[in-house]
Amino acid sequence: MSHGNKQQWILAKRPEGIPDTSEVVFQEAPIPETGPGMLLVKNHYISLDPAIRGWMSDIPNYLPPIPIGDPVRATVVGEVLESGADHIKPGDYVFGLGGWETHSTIPVDFCTPVPADNTFPLHYYVNILGAVGLTPYFAIADVGGAQAGQTMLMSAAAGAVGSVGGQIAKLMGLKVVGIAGTDEKCRWVVDELGFDDCINYRTAGDMEAAIRAACPEGVDFYFDNVGGEILDAALMNMNKDSTLLFCGTISTYNATGPVPGPYNYWQILARTITVKGYLVSDHYHRIAEGQAALSQWVKADQLKFREHINEGIENCLDTYNLLFSGGNEGKLMLKL
Amino acid sequence: MSHGNKQQWILAKRPEGIPDTSEVVFQEAPIPETGPGMLLVKNHYISLDPAIRGWMSDIPNYLPPIPIGDPVRATVVGEVLESGADHIKPGDYVFGLGGWETHSTIPVDFCTPVPADNTFPLHYYVNILGAVGLTPYFAIADVGGAQAGQTMLMSAAAGAVGSVGGQIAKLMGLKVVGIAGTDEKCRWVVDELGFDDCINYRTAGDMEAAIRAACPEGVDFYFDNVGGEILDAALMNMNKDSTLLFCGTISTYNATGPVPGPYNYWQILARTITVKGYLVSDHYHRIAEGQAALSQWVKADQLKFREHINEGIENCLDTYNLLFSGGNEGKLMLKL
Repeated sequence: MSHGNKQQWILAKRPEGIPDTSEVVFQEAPIPETGPGMLLVKNHYISLDPAIRGWMSDIPNYLPPIPIGDPVRATVVGEVLESGADHIKPGDYVFGLGGWETHSTIPVDFCTPVPADNTFPLHYYVNILGAVGLTPYFAIADVGGAQAGQTMLMSAAAGAVGSVGGQIAKLMGLKVVGIAGTDEKCRWVVDELGFDDCINYRTAGDMEAAIRAACPEGVDFYFDNVGGEILDAALMNMNKDSTLLFCGTISTYNATGPVPGPYNYWQILARTITVKGYLVSDHYHRIAEGQAALSQWVKADQLKFREHINEGIENCLDTYNLLFSGGNEGKLMLKL
Repeated sequence: MSHGNKQQWILAKRPEGIPDTSEVVFQEAPIPETGPGMLLVKNHYISLDPAIRGWMSDIPNYLPPIPIGDPVRATVVGEVLESGADHIKPGDYVFGLGGWETHSTIPVDFCTPVPADNTFPLHYYVNILGAVGLTPYFAIADVGGAQAGQTMLMSAAAGAVGSVGGQIAKLMGLKVVGIAGTDEKCRWVVDELGFDDCINYRTAGDMEAAIRAACPEGVDFYFDNVGGEILDAALMNMNKDSTLLFCGTISTYNATGPVPGPYNYWQILARTITVKGYLVSDHYHRIAEGQAALSQWVKADQLKFREHINEGIENCLDTYNLLFSGGNEGKLMLKL
């Protein structure tokens, strides 16, 4: 059976800084045979996440580096065209670990079926019902042990994970202070999402003082998506026995040299902070529970989220790089 | 009542690098009146610990900086000469937070009585029955959750805390690999204390590779007393879901500029490591339990330790600075 061609972005070499078309290359390639245990998926949506930048580098990571010559790895949702597994049929929809391409051939173990009775738009499975919602869902209460009445500081508060995470923390009864990069984002976070406050890190000046002013009782839980100088400012405001949930360091993903850890690392000891390195994928055995809780909140209009959806596989790289300029407004996805 | 004079070392200004006599100054001063709630203690032994260097600086810490003009703060053990508290009498012995001086006037709440039936040498209460033993006692099982069969990497393994901590971990059934700065120290740690292996960081060359060779199964528990490059090498050998107990960073205490955190900070996320900032003083409500366990091990000859005791208050600063050259062999104390 002839499969025809697919279009894809492959990693030609490890990027220096923000990836460009000398490093990530658009091409046509034949669609391979679908072997046993594999699915051929026609991708409908590709999730564009900061974590992908880490997979492009060869710094040791929780997944192996993307091999040179392979398509850029990404979470996708789409329709099964061919199945090498008994329990998935052509015509089913799945989400899983595919790539920046029109069609992905994926081990069935890396895919989860979209429920047959799904009533949500398909792309929710790479957004609020995927890692965007599941990341803060498992992070806040389960991993971080957050409790009602505590103060949470949320970096990248207008970002996909941060905006949902702050709302989940509010639903749990925490005070939530966000950090974002424009006044418009800060207004959205406070006025629409119900955060208690939000600091614009581009105009705040002394971030340590700005956090102190917004959290005079100190920070019990810092949800860190950014690292860098904001992490250093947060550390100086953390309470004794507080929690630093380490979810990402977007400020450093495009660094071209060695990146030092926080200069205020000593405060982890001085304030007896617990730092938890966190990966949502460690909790995917509980994905049904997480999706059920998130679905309920979404239906009840208790979780709001923005989506930034560009179209066309040829626009994938330019769309992706919006993440690093702060140019996206809401969860970034590509529609095919 | 005339109290006479005492001899003491006061902090004249915040040190740059290793403290010298322009920064820490020897003087005579009158012994003050002993007010209510205070004890006048004739110090017999002064404990000389890396942590004191942190208290000399004005970087925010778990205790306030030593005020300029005050005696350098240190744990002491000695005899009560005058008591402003009902339950402590002159002639009793106590240990607590005093200073680099012949006599300290200490709030009774900062002192613990030496048990009346004590049969150990007095200085054990600023060594194995004080923070040296209690620090690893509470750190390893309680805080770090270490379990039999795991692999522990112990930095400053020939140091006071490290050498005792490694033995406690061995008593609990862990594999223990030490890191120390001379071949003699490494031999002592392995041959006398029963560590499984010990790496000489001054001669090992590539520390990341040396740790990998000694811990081919990876590190489940890193007991960090040193920070710096050794921490970076340890991070590259830590297992998924492992524990980094952050007890100290002696390699950076004399830094004269901002000190970056570990360059491999990202590995905390990539390996979902839990970092626990740790202070023994948070566990002093259980001091009787800890001292009972340590006493039993000492009596049964299951814990060995070295002591490095110099004499004379006038030698306090020179003795202290042995900590930063690695010139001490065992727990450093000053006898008065």
